[in-house]
Formats: sequence, C-alpha cells, structure tokens
Amino acid sequence: MSDIPNILAQRYATEGMRNIWSAEGKIVLEREFWIAVLKAQRDLGLDVPAAVIAAYECAKDKVDLDSIQTREAVTRHDVKARIEEFCALAGHEQIHKGMTSRDLTENVEQLQVLRALQYVLPRSVAVLQAFADAARRHRDLVIAARTHNVAAQPTTLGKRLAMFGEEMMLACRRLETLVARYPVRGLRGAVGTQLDQMTLFGGDVAKAAALDDRIVEHLGFKNRLEAVGQVYPRSLDFDVISALFQLSCGPSSFATTLRLMAGHELASEGFAKGQVGSSAMPHKMNSRSCERINGFHTILRGHVTMAAGLAGDQWNEGDVSCSVVRRVVLPDSFFALDGALETTLTVLSQMEAYPEVIARENRRYLPFLATTTILMKAVQAGAGREQAHELIREHAIAAVRDLRAGKTEENDLVDRLAREERIPLTRDEIQAVVEDAARLTGAAAAQVDGFCAAVDDWGKRYPQAAGIEPGRIL
Amino acid sequence: MSDIPNILAQRYATEGMRNIWSAEGKIVLEREFWIAVLKAQRDLGLDVPAAVIAAYECAKDKVDLDSIQTREAVTRHDVKARIEEFCALAGHEQIHKGMTSRDLTENVEQLQVLRALQYVLPRSVAVLQAFADAARRHRDLVIAARTHNVAAQPTTLGKRLAMFGEEMMLACRRLETLVARYPVRGLRGAVGTQLDQMTLFGGDVAKAAALDDRIVEHLGFKNRLEAVGQVYPRSLDFDVISALFQLSCGPSSFATTLRLMAGHELASEGFAKGQVGSSAMPHKMNSRSCERINGFHTILRGHVTMAAGLAGDQWNEGDVSCSVVRRVVLPDSFFALDGALETTLTVLSQMEAYPEVIARENRRYLPFLATTTILMKAVQAGAGREQAHELIREHAIAAVRDLRAGKTEENDLVDRLAREERIPLTRDEIQAVVEDAARLTGAAAAQVDGFCAAVDDWGKRYPQAAGIEPGRIL
Amino acid sequence: MSDIPNILAQRYATEGMRNIWSAEGKIVLEREFWIAVLKAQRDLGLDVPAAVIAAYECAKDKVDLDSIQTREAVTRHDVKARIEEFCALAGHEQIHKGMTSRDLTENVEQLQVLRALQYVLPRSVAVLQAFADAARRHRDLVIAARTHNVAAQPTTLGKRLAMFGEEMMLACRRLETLVARYPVRGLRGAVGTQLDQMTLFGGDVAKAAALDDRIVEHLGFKNRLEAVGQVYPRSLDFDVISALFQLSCGPSSFATTLRLMAGHELASEGFAKGQVGSSAMPHKMNSRSCERINGFHTILRGHVTMAAGLAGDQWNEGDVSCSVVRRVVLPDSFFALDGALETTLTVLSQMEAYPEVIARENRRYLPFLATTTILMKAVQAGAGREQAHELIREHAIAAVRDLRAGKTEENDLVDRLAREERIPLTRDEIQAVVEDAARLTGAAAAQVDGFCAAVDDWGKRYPQAAGIEPGRIL
Amino acid sequence: MSDIPNILAQRYATEGMRNIWSAEGKIVLEREFWIAVLKAQRDLGLDVPAAVIAAYECAKDKVDLDSIQTREAVTRHDVKARIEEFCALAGHEQIHKGMTSRDLTENVEQLQVLRALQYVLPRSVAVLQAFADAARRHRDLVIAARTHNVAAQPTTLGKRLAMFGEEMMLACRRLETLVARYPVRGLRGAVGTQLDQMTLFGGDVAKAAALDDRIVEHLGFKNRLEAVGQVYPRSLDFDVISALFQLSCGPSSFATTLRLMAGHELASEGFAKGQVGSSAMPHKMNSRSCERINGFHTILRGHVTMAAGLAGDQWNEGDVSCSVVRRVVLPDSFFALDGALETTLTVLSQMEAYPEVIARENRRYLPFLATTTILMKAVQAGAGREQAHELIREHAIAAVRDLRAGKTEENDLVDRLAREERIPLTRDEIQAVVEDAARLTGAAAAQVDGFCAAVDDWGKRYPQAAGIEPGRIL
Repeated sequence: MSDIPNILAQRYATEGMRNIWSAEGKIVLEREFWIAVLKAQRDLGLDVPAAVIAAYECAKDKVDLDSIQTREAVTRHDVKARIEEFCALAGHEQIHKGMTSRDLTENVEQLQVLRALQYVLPRSVAVLQAFADAARRHRDLVIAARTHNVAAQPTTLGKRLAMFGEEMMLACRRLETLVARYPVRGLRGAVGTQLDQMTLFGGDVAKAAALDDRIVEHLGFKNRLEAVGQVYPRSLDFDVISALFQLSCGPSSFATTLRLMAGHELASEGFAKGQVGSSAMPHKMNSRSCERINGFHTILRGHVTMAAGLAGDQWNEGDVSCSVVRRVVLPDSFFALDGALETTLTVLSQMEAYPEVIARENRRYLPFLATTTILMKAVQAGAGREQAHELIREHAIAAVRDLRAGKTEENDLVDRLAREERIPLTRDEIQAVVEDAARLTGAAAAQVDGFCAAVDDWGKRYPQAAGIEPGRIL
Repeated sequence: MSDIPNILAQRYATEGMRNIWSAEGKIVLEREFWIAVLKAQRDLGLDVPAAVIAAYECAKDKVDLDSIQTREAVTRHDVKARIEEFCALAGHEQIHKGMTSRDLTENVEQLQVLRALQYVLPRSVAVLQAFADAARRHRDLVIAARTHNVAAQPTTLGKRLAMFGEEMMLACRRLETLVARYPVRGLRGAVGTQLDQMTLFGGDVAKAAALDDRIVEHLGFKNRLEAVGQVYPRSLDFDVISALFQLSCGPSSFATTLRLMAGHELASEGFAKGQVGSSAMPHKMNSRSCERINGFHTILRGHVTMAAGLAGDQWNEGDVSCSVVRRVVLPDSFFALDGALETTLTVLSQMEAYPEVIARENRRYLPFLATTTILMKAVQAGAGREQAHELIREHAIAAVRDLRAGKTEENDLVDRLAREERIPLTRDEIQAVVEDAARLTGAAAAQVDGFCAAVDDWGKRYPQAAGIEPGRIL
Repeated sequence: MSDIPNILAQRYATEGMRNIWSAEGKIVLEREFWIAVLKAQRDLGLDVPAAVIAAYECAKDKVDLDSIQTREAVTRHDVKARIEEFCALAGHEQIHKGMTSRDLTENVEQLQVLRALQYVLPRSVAVLQAFADAARRHRDLVIAARTHNVAAQPTTLGKRLAMFGEEMMLACRRLETLVARYPVRGLRGAVGTQLDQMTLFGGDVAKAAALDDRIVEHLGFKNRLEAVGQVYPRSLDFDVISALFQLSCGPSSFATTLRLMAGHELASEGFAKGQVGSSAMPHKMNSRSCERINGFHTILRGHVTMAAGLAGDQWNEGDVSCSVVRRVVLPDSFFALDGALETTLTVLSQMEAYPEVIARENRRYLPFLATTTILMKAVQAGAGREQAHELIREHAIAAVRDLRAGKTEENDLVDRLAREERIPLTRDEIQAVVEDAARLTGAAAAQVDGFCAAVDDWGKRYPQAAGIEPGRIL
Repeated sequence: MSDIPNILAQRYATEGMRNIWSAEGKIVLEREFWIAVLKAQRDLGLDVPAAVIAAYECAKDKVDLDSIQTREAVTRHDVKARIEEFCALAGHEQIHKGMTSRDLTENVEQLQVLRALQYVLPRSVAVLQAFADAARRHRDLVIAARTHNVAAQPTTLGKRLAMFGEEMMLACRRLETLVARYPVRGLRGAVGTQLDQMTLFGGDVAKAAALDDRIVEHLGFKNRLEAVGQVYPRSLDFDVISALFQLSCGPSSFATTLRLMAGHELASEGFAKGQVGSSAMPHKMNSRSCERINGFHTILRGHVTMAAGLAGDQWNEGDVSCSVVRRVVLPDSFFALDGALETTLTVLSQMEAYPEVIARENRRYLPFLATTTILMKAVQAGAGREQAHELIREHAIAAVRDLRAGKTEENDLVDRLAREERIPLTRDEIQAVVEDAARLTGAAAAQVDGFCAAVDDWGKRYPQAAGIEPGRIL
C-alpha cells in the first residue's frame, strides 16, 4: 500500500503546526494527561504507588503507532487500544481510572486547539507587520484606486495594502477574544456529571472538583464549561474554524487584488531564485503564490461548512458522529490557514511594484479620476449638482469612446470640459485640478500611518511575532 | 403579477426585526442620514440654507416605493433613483454633496446590522432565561443520559437543559464582543481616502475628519475603520452571520434532543390550543416547532456559505458583486435567527416532561447505568480494572441479549454479577449500587444552579430581556 | 407591519418563474390536485356526487390568503387550514379522503419543481444561443489569451466566449438528464405504504395503484418512486439545486472574465439608455450586470449548502424539519438562477468589444506570446528543449524588467534573442514567428464553429428558446 | 518532522481507491502519458529515435518522491521538477514537446477522476445489493413507521430499508449518466487552441487533431471538450463531487435511522468480534459505524462547498488558484465516499433486528396506528370526515395523556372510542381494525419486491459488484 500523506501538512504547513497535530505528538500529550490525572488522584488521597507513576513516565515517549493500530484492529476502539498499549509498556493497569474516553480525548483535543490558536496568533501578528512594512514602503506611491475594476480616484499603494491589513486586524481581534474566552470541558465523566470521579473519592464532590481544577490548570485553560455533556459543544469548533477562515480573508482579498495588479503589470508577487513561471511561456511572472492563498481560502470555506455541519446537531449528551469529521477538519483547517499565513508573509516580503508602469496608468486616467473634484469645483462655482454631474459624465464618456475607437490618441477630457459653457470653470482651472489629482490622495498617507501605529501596538503585545520569518515555500 | 413575500420575514420573524429591514424603514434611515450630513456640513461652514434642510425634513417620511422603482428603471442605479426622488420631493438638489453611493449605503446598512444585533442580544438573553427557567423546573428530575443515543448514566433533565443553554451562552458571549467591537466604515468617499469631503472643505483634513466624527456619532458606533476602501470588508458580514449561526446552535441541539425524547415519550414540546398534530393521525403530538428550529439552523448554514462566498474576495477597493447577495443574506439571516429564537422561547415555555415514563425507563436501565459505579467499587475491592471491565461487559451484554430475545422479562444483571466469582462484590453490595444509581447524578443539580446563576448575571446586564415573551407562532 | 417582499422574486426573476412559485398559484394547483383525486376516486367506484365536485370546482379560484392565514393561526397546521378553507368555500367535506398532508404537498411541490425545471431548460438554451451569437460575432477577433491573468498566447474573443458557453452546455446536458429521470412520490399515504387508499377501496391493491397511476399522469411525470416514505428523499432536492448552481457556472466565469476585460478596456458589458455608472465618477462604465451575475452565483452556493443540509438527514419515514428550509430554498434557488440567466442574456446581447484597444495590447505582448513557437522552432533547429527554454526565459524576463523599469519603451525581445548564440535562429526567423503570432490562434475559429454547431442542435430540440428575449433588467 | 498521513486514506479508504490517488501511482500515470504522446508524435512523423522511447520506458517505474521534491524546492514548479526527474533518469530531453503543464496535469487528473468514478460505480451497486439483501431478510417484519419520530402507521422493516436503498439508487442513476457523459480536456495546448502541437507539425491541423484523438483514446474517454481553455471547467469537478455527496445520502439517512432504532433497541448495527462499545459502559452496543457514515456525509458536505468555491470562478483561460484546493478535494471526496460505502456494506451485513422488542412496541402503538383506518371506516359508516377526525384525535390524546401520567397501564383507546356515540362503529368493529393493523402494511412487501427487482437489474449490468465484500473496518 502506498502512503498517502496529508498534503496540506506536508506541502504547506510549518513544522510547529505539524508538531501540534502529529499522531506521535498527540499520544505523548495523552500520556502526559493520564500521568497528570494519576498524580492528582494520588495527591487527593488515592493509593497510587510511586513506582506505578514512574513506570508510566518511563514508557511515556515510547510511541509505536503500528502496535497501537494492531490493537485497534482487534478492539475497534481507538482509546481502548491506546490504554492497552500504554499499560502494556508500563506493566500496570492504573491509568484512566474514573475516566471515560471523552475525559481523555476531549481535553487533549481542546489542548491541541488552544495551542494551535496560540501558535496562529503571533504568526497572524507577523502578517500584520508584513502588511505594515509593505504599506510603509509604498505609503506615498500614487496609484489609481479601482472600483468595479475600473480606475476611480487616486489612492496610494500603501493605503491599499493598509486596507487589506486592516481587514486582517479585525480578524486578529476576534481571534484574540476567542483565545481569551475559549473554555475547556474538563474531567466531567461519561455524561458530564462527574459521577465517576466522585465515586472514586467516595462521593466527595469537593475532591472531584479539586481534581478537575488541577487538570484544567495542567492544561493551561482559563475558562471551563459548567454543564457540559459527554462532549463539549461542537459550535465551539465552529467558532474556532470560522475564526481561522476570517483570518484568511484579508490575505485572500489582498492576493486577489495583487493578481489583478499583476494583470496590469503594476506590481508582481516577485520571484524566488530558480523559480519557473510556466514551463511553456518563460516570460511570464505568474501570481502563483497569490493564487495559492486564494486556494487555501477556498479550502477553509469548505472547512467552515464541515464545522457548521457538526454544530447544533448534538444528540442528547453526545456521540461520535463528529469523530471522523473532526479528525479531518481540526488539523486541516489549521494547516490550511498556516499555509495561507506563510504564503502571505512570503508574498508581502517579495512583492514588487513597478512605479513607471503605475505612472503611465495614472497619466491615462488622471483626467477621469479628477472628475469628482471637478464636479465639486463646479458646484462651488454655482452649478447645480445634478446637471453638472450629467454634463461631466457625457463628456467623459465621449472622451473614453473616442479613445477606445482609436479616434483620439490622448485623453482630451480637459479640452472638452473647457469648451462646455454650462460648466462654470476655465481650462486653466480644470487643468489645475487634473495636475493636482495625482497629489489628491486625501487622507491615504495618514491612514497608512494610523494602520502602522495600530500594528505597532500589536507588536508590543506579541513580541514573539518579530522573529517570525517566512520559511521556504514550494 | 403575484406578490411573493419574504417567507422568513412574513411567517417567522418578529415585527421589531421586520421594521429594521423593511424598504420603507431603510429609506427613512437614509434620508435621516442625508439630513445629518447636511447639518454637519452646515455646522462646519458650508452654505446650506435653513429652508433647504427644512424642506428635506418635511419630505423625509413621504416614502413612495413605486415612484422610486420607476426612477430606477430609467437610471438603472438604485441610489441615484433615491436621490432624485428625495430631491424632487424637497424641491432642492443639495443632499449627497461630496458623497459617493457607498458613503450612504455602507453606513446605513451597517446601522441596520448594528441595530439588528442589538435587537438580537436581549432576545438571546431571554432564551437563556427560558433555558434557566426550564432547567430549574426539572433540576432534580433523574433521567438516563444517553451517549450514542443509548442510555449511559443518570443525569437530570435540568442538567440536560442547562447543557444546551450553556452552549448558547458561549454564543451570546461571542455576540457581546462582536457588538462591542463592530466598526463602521464612516464617510470615507469613493475609494476611502476622504478626498471628496476634503475638497468640499477646501482641502481641510481636520474638517473632513470632524464631519466623519459627527456622522459616526450620529450612527451610534463606537469603532471606526481606518484605511477602508469603497466598501467595508465583507469578512465583517461573515463575522456577523457566523455569529448568528452560532447563536442558533444551542437551540438546535436542544430541539434535536427534544425530538429524540419525544420519540421515547419522555417529553414533548407541548401544544398550543387548537393545534393539530397531523391531519391523518390525530393522536400524534409532533415536535413540529423543534423541527422548525432545526430548519432555521439549516437555513443559517446556507447563509454562512453565502457570507463566506463574499468574504476575502474583494477586488481592489470594491465593487457591487456582493450587492444582490447582501440584499438577501443580511436580512434573511436575521429573520431566520429571529424565528429560531422566537420558536425556542415558545418551546421552552410549553414543553412538558412525563416523569412516569421517565421513571419507567430508569427502572429498565438502572442496572446498566450503574455499571461504571460497580466497576469502580470492584476496582476499589481489589479487582484489576481491565479484567473487571471485561467481565461486567460480558454479563451486561448477555443480560441485554436475553432481554432482546424475549428470554427474560426483567433486567437480571445484578444476579449475574453476584454469581460471578471474579467480581469481588456481594449481591447486596451490587444491589445497593443499583438502588443508589437513580440518586447518583453527580454534580448535575449543582451544575444547574451554576448555569442559572450565570444566566441571572446576564439578566442583570440586559434587564430588557425580562419583558420578552414569545409571540404567537404559526 | 411593513411588507417585506422576496427580493429575488421581485427585483430579478421573470414573471413566468414568479407565477410558478406564488402563493396563489400554488393554492390553485393544490385545489386542482384535490379535485383530480376526487374524480379519480369517483371513477374507481367511490361515491362522490357530481354536485360535490362541481362545488369544489366552482370555489377553486377563490383564493383568499388572509382567510387561510387566520385559520392557520388557530390550527397551527398549514394544510389543515387550507383544507378547511376550501371545504368552507365549497360547502362540503369531501376532499383529502384517504390522503395525508404529504400526499398533497409533496406532489404539488414536485410539480412546481418540475415545471420550474422545464421553464429553465429553454431559457438556458437561449443563453447558449446568446453565447453562440456573440462567439460568432467575435470569431476571428484576435486577443491575448491569459493564464494567471497574464497574456499567454493568442486566441480569439469568439473562442473565449465559446469556452464559457461550452461550460454551460455541460450543465444543460445534466439538466436535461435530470428532467428526464426526475421521479415523483405519488399518492403513497402517511408513511408510503398506500394503506389509506387501499382501505378506501376495501383493501383493493389494484385500485389504489390505479388511483396512483392517474394522479402521476395528471401531474405529467414519467417516473415514480417505488418504496418512498412520508416524504420523497431530500437528496432529490439537492440534485435539482446543485444542477441550478451548475447552470450558473458558465455565466459566472464569463462574467468574471468580462469584468477583468473591462479593467483593461478590452470590452465592456455595454449600457442601456439612461443608465448611470456611478453617481460620483461619471466616466466609468462599470460591469454592474456582470457583478450581479457573480452575486447570483454566490447566492446559489449558499442554496447548495442549504439543500445539502437536508439531504441524507431523514429520520425514519420523515418529518418537517425540512419544511421551512424548502419554503426558502426551492423558490429562491430558481429565482436566483432565473435572474442570472436573464442578466446573462442581457450582457451577451449588449456587450461591446474594443478592437483598437485589443490590437494595442496585442502589439505589446506579441513577442512574448510567440515564445512557445520560438521554442518549438529552436528545438526543431537542434537546440535542447530545456536549455532553449531557459535561455528564452532569461531574455524574456530581462526584456520585461527593462520595460517595467522604464529603461526601454519598446518590447525588444526579438533583438535580444537574435543576439543569443545558443539559440540557433536568425533575427529574420524570429521576427517572422512574431509577425505570424497574431494569426497563430490555432484551432480557435474552428472551435467556435464546432460550438455553434452544437448549439444549433440544442436550438432544434428546444425551438421555444428562439423567442426568448431578455426583459428589462434593473 | 513527523509524518502526517491523510487520515481518510489511511483509516477508511480501500486499497483500490488509495492506489488511484497515491503520489507514486500518479507519477507512473504521467510517465505513461508522456510516453504515449512521444509514440503518437513519432507515428505522426516526428523524429523520435526508438532508443529514446526505450530509455523513458525503462525509467518509468523508478519513482523517487524525495528526489522530485528536492527539484521542486529549486524550481518551485511541480511539473517542471517531474520533467527534469524523468529526463535525468532517461538521459534524454524529449518528453513534453509541444505540451504545456496543463496538457499533462489536466488529462492525468481527469483520468484519475474517471477511474475513481468507475471504481465507485460497482461498489455503489454492491451497496444497493446489500440494501436489497437486508430488505429481503426483513421484508415482512412489521414495525411502526415513524413520522416526526413518533409511531404513525405500520410498515415493514424491509420496506424501510428499501426506502433508503431507493434513495441511493437515484444517486447511482445520476452517477451512471455522469460517467457516460464525462468529457476530457485533451491535448489542447497552453490556452486551448492547440497551437503548439500544430506548430510541431508545421501548422498541420489534421495531425494535431489526430494526435489529440490518439491521446483521448489512450485515456479511455468517450467525450471531449471542444473549446476548452488552459483548464477544463471546474464546474465539472463540482458535478463529480456533488454526485459523490448524493451517493452518500441514502446511506446517511439509513445510518441516522438505525441510530434512532438502536435508541429504542429495535435494531442495532451489530458487533464484530472483539469490539468494545465504550470503555466505561460495557453494556452499550453503540452505533459507532452508523455515526461514522454520518460523519463521512458531513465531510462530503464540506467538499461540495470547496468544489462550489472553484466552480464558476475562472479568470480568462485559467490559472492555479484551484490547484491546492483540487489536491485536497478530489482525492479526499473519493476517500470519504469510499469509506462511507465500505462502512455501509459492513453495517448492512452485520445489522441485527430484535423482533421481540419490535413486537412489544407494536402492541403499545397498535390502537394509535389504527386511527387512520378507524377514521376511514367511520367516514364509510357515515360520519363527517372533519368531525370524526376531531373526535378520534381527542380520545387518542386523552389515552396518551393518561398513559403518560401513569393513570392507565394499558392503551385503552378502543374502549374510549367504543363509548363515543358520535363514532358510528361498535367496539368489535374497532377492535377488529386494531387487530388487523399489524397486518395492514399496505403495499410494503410488494414495494420491497419491486426495489429488489430493480437492484437485480443493476447487478446484471455490473456483475463485478457481486464479488465486493466489505473489508475489515476499524
């Protein structure tokens, strides 16, 4: 049998993210969890010989996936198989006392989720910083803003980058509140009533609660569910995965727009050494990485649907109809986002703008881009807004039509408007507006500064973001 | 032509929610917005005669949808049509100065969203309170908790209700942070640079900023986007709609479980006077309202996909490829959630539990439900955990098989285990565990109390929730 | 209370589609169905006086939605309310005998679906024809094909249009097989066993079957489900709605690409008289209709999720958890597709190409677009493929970089390659390839012809498509 | 670095499916494709020495994934890396002439899709047969059909199974037409115009067409796209993946219903030797496999969203924004469906019904299930339908309420109705109806026969289905 790797993990995710979700890593996490429970039980008065704990600790890192799989083929129960394996290695049958499978798996999986979220957060901040760096670099580079994919008014490239960065910042804010309020299930027993732990402690509610406290603390959570059933509510997974999707939105809109700019040769995502654009058309500098960012985003859309499919569909205290789904969607959504962040970091650090091409485009569109200002001036000079609007529109369309038909070579809108008697502006006045247009980027630069200042604040709160560099992407 | 109503609005939503999204309501909102801009412009020094403002104010409430639609059929531009209509009514051409369509529509739509969220929040709290009330009523009613849809351990019905209520509380917490951080686009001009407003004020950045401040304040927002383009990021709509979906998860899981309980006659959603269960089978008391809650939830899943389809797909500074989608998904998702909340309120207030049927079920399952406790006792009495587990399992399966085959009439697990030599417990000891089982609901009641206390805290923060009663649902 | 209309129906759908889904239309359809059942029951021997049938027929078209809604508020059962209303109007209690609600609603809804599919099919063929017409018009207009949004090789605009038309043709083929195999539930009773009808006929299976035959024939279906339960399988709705989504794919890809072309001024979607592009920037000719097509497509994606949410989730013989979902998703998905088809027809009939602008672009890219042919020639002249590929790539990138940096004004790739010794081609040979490039559109024109011929075949099978003109879109 | 396997492939999919999608398998497929092109080019007159072909054939099976990955890390272009690897192994640079990357990848991936569909089809037929076998076994086992999850009318377990089998049969029919009409892209060059192949053959259209013919034939396709661009339309992937989802609907509804039945102990999915239901509650026989089927179905819902996200979003002639998505969604959707089919086969072969428990339930519900027949009899005996309906309903509800309140121990509806004067039936008449009820399963058994006959027809068309046995599932 051929091995089929998880393509998202193998090709696109970072090592740190892979480690959180690897089979071996999870098994070690589980064993640490069992040992922590064992110790807590001992501390709270149960008879657990030191030698038993030592034996389990000694066996903890001996992970043999094949052996576990062989056991599971017999038991057809994955947790049972892993208990048997660990007990066989340790030579004792002491772990998992007063626990049900979900006491183990729910908590360990929530730990994986939390750690993955905590891994994502500074990396997202690093992307914000990369947006800010790029926005600063291009703070004053005037470019035609486009609406409906058509030149509309001047802006700056820096402001455009800040715009997408700000979209991501909104998502970071959501992520931050999610991490802060993410609650863990805890050691709640088969159906959430803590019965088994209470029984272990002779019905002592306080001891069962103390045990739960220690475990939650061991896991590093700050919030706990109160009245949970066998499983924690799957809408919590939806909360997580929809937050991951939201994190990829700013990068995805940015990537889409860079693909559009590349089509006009205004900018490109740059090249790493040795990269080949296309095997057949060597001159092309293709936005492959940007397209990939959009691809991750589309994958995450599907993950949102998967998570939504589980949320709000709990039968009684729970079952495992979510199991295979969560095996796929929890790691894969983190891998996909991880790949999207990594790729965005790369693109933002390598992207190139072409000021000469941008300037050429500006010259072509300046008279049109100035029309709203001309309209304002005309209104200030006494024209009725609606009539002036209509006149400017007519002349602009005529100018465009002639250009498109090859009748004119140059944009002659200024002359047309100067000849129009119902527009109370002279040619000089109109020309002055047009010449100013390239400088009339309004508050664009100030907005870049505002965005960068906000990012700096994030940087202070997440200093570890500073050291994050994009790895080598495929 | 037949009128086709919005079925979600007409059949299921409350009047308050319909008012937020009605065409007339939105037009009045827009006109108020234009007038607010006009006044702010005047205050900041523009020449706007008092008579002009008065004329617009006088015309504000004269909403003639047909006239607007006639204009739009000519202009093929909806905002233009509404400007023309309002100006024709007022007899002036002064509104919308220095504004682009999106300065109007984005802000007014965000205002609708914010108001709808603020409408949803106390209604959600009212649902939490209804969960708490029901949980309190059934705090101590012992019922077999089920995992894999099979009886597992005793719990209480109150705890089960608290479990679903707690799922919803997580979503309320998310909703609360969303409302707190929801940022508005503001008066940012055609591409977000504030150019046109600056031009109006002779390039005065400070005045443009002051104008924006006044408008944001007028709208009642506390946060503002900084570097936005023509449109606010559509991932913000996703944030909203995924939060609405998440709000429906607790109710949906609850509804699913009540449908399951109704199948066992343990509980029903109750009947309103005059209701007919089924035209052909009159004895049936069907969970139609619960099924409807699940239906709303499925609709919201589709809305999440629609919103996800817009998010992260911005081209440059924006366009209207999102327009028709948002016309559908923004109101409809709020209508669907509104209907879900309304229906949940009704079900929670009308639901009936059948203690006699529940008790009958408990008697059947008690010996099985006690097995984990028996296992604990056996381990405490010296048995190896794995062997004892295996023995109990074998006898339990045999007892079940004989019951299922009609070989036994009564659950005889206690006798079987008493005869088993390798279980170091006497028949009396085992029987005592079984008799205790119904009382062994662990921390269930305490969890109900904890949930109710948390809900009380929500009630204090949202006192208006107290007065919300479910309307008459169809 | 404000009326909230179904925005998709009111703004975008055609009258024919609205009529299929209107409340009044459906009630008349139901009443015709009841009368048909009544007549069939009489024909098969039941005692149904002629006067009774006449009374129902007389009352058939008296549709009073308010009265029905008042009844439903009492009964909380919509079918019951409609039975009562019809019986009150007729003065008899004879309809719905031996029927359950779903005998009525399932069949009538399937009839709506079938009629809507039959309505969509010729309209889709009309869109194919519009693609073919446009492809024919631009059959030989050479344009730079783009991959990664960058010019790649010459093609013709006609071929590009045929490409999107062909995508839609695949969906039409699926639609056609769907209509051919779409099966109806039939008169199968409360749980699908036909018990009630058999009871009506004294247990006579043959008469119950004959009744079912007549009804299926009355509905106009050719296939019937055999072992259906209370409801027909909801995966059949998914089949329908996913087919509608698929139909919108070709139009959506086309619309996306026309938006891209408009950004380069190569083409536009054209203008209807009086249309305003943008209230603030009068020169802009925005792709608003194309953006709307993409919007409908995004809506349909959400409908696919809704339909998928119902499919495969049947509990036993069925319930009404699907009810509210289907009330929304069945009509709305047809309205959205209807709007998409209507808009696509309009765009295809109004779109304009700008040959002068296209020619200008071709001149810029010709040398690059010729590189694959140059590579072929170089290989034929003895160069190793990989080395030649690398050399051409290097020179092409250098040429591009200098153009982008403003170092060169003209594309000088021919000179660079001519100077390269390791490329065994003379300048004349290379220049000849470049001059040929614009003519080297391969089989593009032949593919247009092939596509048009295939469309002609569809036109023969659906002659009614010829008369379909786009209505006035907003 | 830990290896992260594709969990769907490793844990759930069959070996045959894994082989289609493995990296090694795909590389061999590609190399065979290149060699086929080389031979066809030679046959059509190009100079390709026999030794070159021999060298490539000799190297064909030497697949070294690490080496290829090392190359890709340099070139950042996966096809380029695989060309280099194959050429290095063969010691020639002759493959991929006149081809673009997509000439290779599109066709090879479509081949994988077609083979996977062809693999799925007989396996789906095997599932139909398993439904038929189970339906036959339980053809006459009377069970209470449920609507709204409440007992409604008698049916047979066989009919219920046939119902879900028929849902799947609808999907098989769609799959069959999909396989029959699935078209391949063919060797169409960089943008679909066949330019490069024509150039290779000196502009000879006929030779390029002949080459394409040979390749399409080599791939085993019967249909071909005509006017395709760089990529085949991604709505074709949606067609495939939505068909896979539809195939899982019947199994998923069946699994859901078996989970419901297990909750009532009417049936279970059975046990394999050594299986453990739950580590803590040994008596439980959990529907883990059924829950897993539902899980696969939820995953496929997400895959539908992913595929829908790509469909209708083509920019110009195409790009690679779909690449990472298709790397995930194509294999994973097939793996998920494969797992669902495999699990369904297992469940259908192992499931157990408990006739004694079913009989006990029937006795409880018989009087209620008979009400529709009693109503019919009452109407035949002269009662007005609406009044009789209301009376029966009232008595039935009273009977239920007393049972639920513990006031009665037995279902006494017959006595209540006998005492009701307005129901023109004697106690004996009513009791006779009730006693008949269990036999009154209408056409249920005949419907089973009809379903089985239809399945037999499928078996004749797909004889290979007969040999398919479920493997050992985890």
